[in-house]
Amino acid sequence: MKKKQIEGYTYVDGGVCAAKGFVANGLNCGINPDKNKNDLGMIYSVTLCDAAAVYTQNKVKGAPVVVTKNNLEKSGAKAQAVIVNSKNANTCNANGIEVAEEVCKLTAAELKIQPEQVIVGSTGVIGQPMSVEPFAAAMADLAAGLSVEGHDAAATAIMTTDTVKKEVAVEFEIDGKTCRLGGMAKGSGMIHPNMATTLNFVTTDVAISGEMLQKALSEIVKVTYNCLSIDGDTSTNDMVSVMANGMAGNDKIVEEGKNYKIVKQALHMVMEYMTMMLAADGEGASKFLECSCDGAPDQETAIIVAKSVIRSPLVKCAMFGEDANCGRILCAIGYAEADVDVSKIELELASENDAITTYKDGFSIDFSEEKAAEILKEKELYIRIHLHQGEASAKAWGCDFTYDYVKINGDYRS
Amino acid sequence: MKKKQIEGYTYVDGGVCAAKGFVANGLNCGINPDKNKNDLGMIYSVTLCDAAAVYTQNKVKGAPVVVTKNNLEKSGAKAQAVIVNSKNANTCNANGIEVAEEVCKLTAAELKIQPEQVIVGSTGVIGQPMSVEPFAAAMADLAAGLSVEGHDAAATAIMTTDTVKKEVAVEFEIDGKTCRLGGMAKGSGMIHPNMATTLNFVTTDVAISGEMLQKALSEIVKVTYNCLSIDGDTSTNDMVSVMANGMAGNDKIVEEGKNYKIVKQALHMVMEYMTMMLAADGEGASKFLECSCDGAPDQETAIIVAKSVIRSPLVKCAMFGEDANCGRILCAIGYAEADVDVSKIELELASENDAITTYKDGFSIDFSEEKAAEILKEKELYIRIHLHQGEASAKAWGCDFTYDYVKINGDYRS
Repeated sequence: MKKKQIEGYTYVDGGVCAAKGFVANGLNCGINPDKNKNDLGMIYSVTLCDAAAVYTQNKVKGAPVVVTKNNLEKSGAKAQAVIVNSKNANTCNANGIEVAEEVCKLTAAELKIQPEQVIVGSTGVIGQPMSVEPFAAAMADLAAGLSVEGHDAAATAIMTTDTVKKEVAVEFEIDGKTCRLGGMAKGSGMIHPNMATTLNFVTTDVAISGEMLQKALSEIVKVTYNCLSIDGDTSTNDMVSVMANGMAGNDKIVEEGKNYKIVKQALHMVMEYMTMMLAADGEGASKFLECSCDGAPDQETAIIVAKSVIRSPLVKCAMFGEDANCGRILCAIGYAEADVDVSKIELELASENDAITTYKDGFSIDFSEEKAAEILKEKELYIRIHLHQGEASAKAWGCDFTYDYVKINGDYRS
Repeated sequence: MKKKQIEGYTYVDGGVCAAKGFVANGLNCGINPDKNKNDLGMIYSVTLCDAAAVYTQNKVKGAPVVVTKNNLEKSGAKAQAVIVNSKNANTCNANGIEVAEEVCKLTAAELKIQPEQVIVGSTGVIGQPMSVEPFAAAMADLAAGLSVEGHDAAATAIMTTDTVKKEVAVEFEIDGKTCRLGGMAKGSGMIHPNMATTLNFVTTDVAISGEMLQKALSEIVKVTYNCLSIDGDTSTNDMVSVMANGMAGNDKIVEEGKNYKIVKQALHMVMEYMTMMLAADGEGASKFLECSCDGAPDQETAIIVAKSVIRSPLVKCAMFGEDANCGRILCAIGYAEADVDVSKIELELASENDAITTYKDGFSIDFSEEKAAEILKEKELYIRIHLHQGEASAKAWGCDFTYDYVKINGDYRS
């Protein structure tokens, strides 16, 4: 899974602390009974940030999603800290909103900022009772331990069934000023983002207005996180937030133009790679899957087709079984809710270094089963669809369906 | 899984041969290399039937679906025979239409009827080369062996990953005439019917016009087969056909009214039970799941909500793991594309003999984990949702997600 290389952008370490002025921390506060696992994370900017966020479209929303949305409305899209816990989603609890608001107040008091400048997130089991006590008890320690090295502890604190932490950051220039933008993400199951996604936090030292940040975020979410599907289940707690503290010292970006494009590209790179990391670490995954759809009449069609294939349980099982059962891919294209001329479809199965065409003009063609078997042995598989109906393209990401997905989700609560 | 009991209707044996004048047969013609498995089935009515059918909405359609649709248009909704094979879907083959038309001609020649009076179906692997030869070689034997006992061989011939054959029939009266209506079905994976369904063939001796038959079929498909989801994959070859030969001797039903309602009820009973049989035999299933949605503002909403829950991989895994992780059910209700007031949702987990309420007013409530565990041990589970927003209801059927689903679909072609 290679990071996309683009001239003028360099990948750097540091995750959410890569950009100037951001510190973070994470620890175990007792929500997770396993004391070796962090369950509470904090990100803090030394100055107030412009902020933007997108949220789950699930009608059952986690209390933290509701409270964060309210906060950013109240603060005029300003934020200075993130507080986030794992192991309990604080969703469908009668006192959920109350708890999430109280957590913001505790955070704000400790950091000497306003409660509405706090972005709050939770992930874990839905419908479990939630109390403010573990937050209250840990808040002083959490804040005292904030540091630029703390991105690691924070990224660990949001893991649930994730097997690896997900961080990425890039460095680039705007008008001679060095800028950075980095993020952390969590997510492994219940992933089928719709307009928003799993928990993702992005920080940057670029100076940019909340309005332009929101515009860039909303556009990029559409072609990154929203093109990810692990299991077709859209979580109740999905959220992506971006905080920009302006400490890179560039002239504040307040409209579209060259500089807006530069930062939007950085956001795209970080979010696309985080999406790919989420796909590769899908619950129980043994293979990373990327499905591209080219030659579509418009981007919307390309997205719908690519996502339909990535979502299909039968395609996911075939990839797990290393079976070139491409009829299932055609089947998933056929039931995608898009205007596709099935008589023009071309299909290729590929690994990083090899490819084989299995369908042309909508019909299966003779191909070497031996070569297909070699390709399907690889850990990263690419399903390439060409619709031959236009110029638009899109990609979607996911993983195979394995025994372990069933195992993990058969006993998640316990 | 109890059959619904309704006064005036009695369940009888005989499947598609239960109704007067229908005979059937099945054998192995070599499409399936395992000679012990039937792969070709035939149903024949001694007189010409009024007929109706619904087809898959997948844009990639099996050649037999296209040919059957053309035939019924040409014949003016008349049919006298069904010919159907398993092991090869005859889909995405360059010569698929040609083969399916040739199979109709061979069938018609053998039975001395017209080719457009033949309903042709195929199920199996997509994109495999298909030849007319095995059909040609077996046709004489197949027709010679037609009998009223042949429903069993025919029902066996359409099985793919099915573990049991699916047949059901009912007897009832119209104006003092004894009538029967029975069907056979296949289906185990790639099941998420949309407007149509898996392969299902229904026969009856009721005298009813093709138009009224189509009306009844289209309405009942909506609340039976279309409310079934094994894996969210809508097949390319779905089809339900009904043939009515009129041999019961009732006055022909040509409009809505008392007699139309009687036969529609019979069709509903047969199709609902076939749907439940399909759900219980879902690929790899260890548990049968029924999700009911009551108190919906309209039936459409009830259907969308019930299907969303039945389709959720996370709910299906939780049921497999016997884990009362009801947050996942709320999550699936929340992302259903329906106008639901989540603050009113009530949720019950039930077996045939016991039930436990786990959510009220949209929030999780305290419940006995011990009692929940006892309920979830059962092989047949009932998820009961009450929206408290109106009077409409619907049910959806499915099964749990198991290791075996992944295993079966990891090596289906081989």
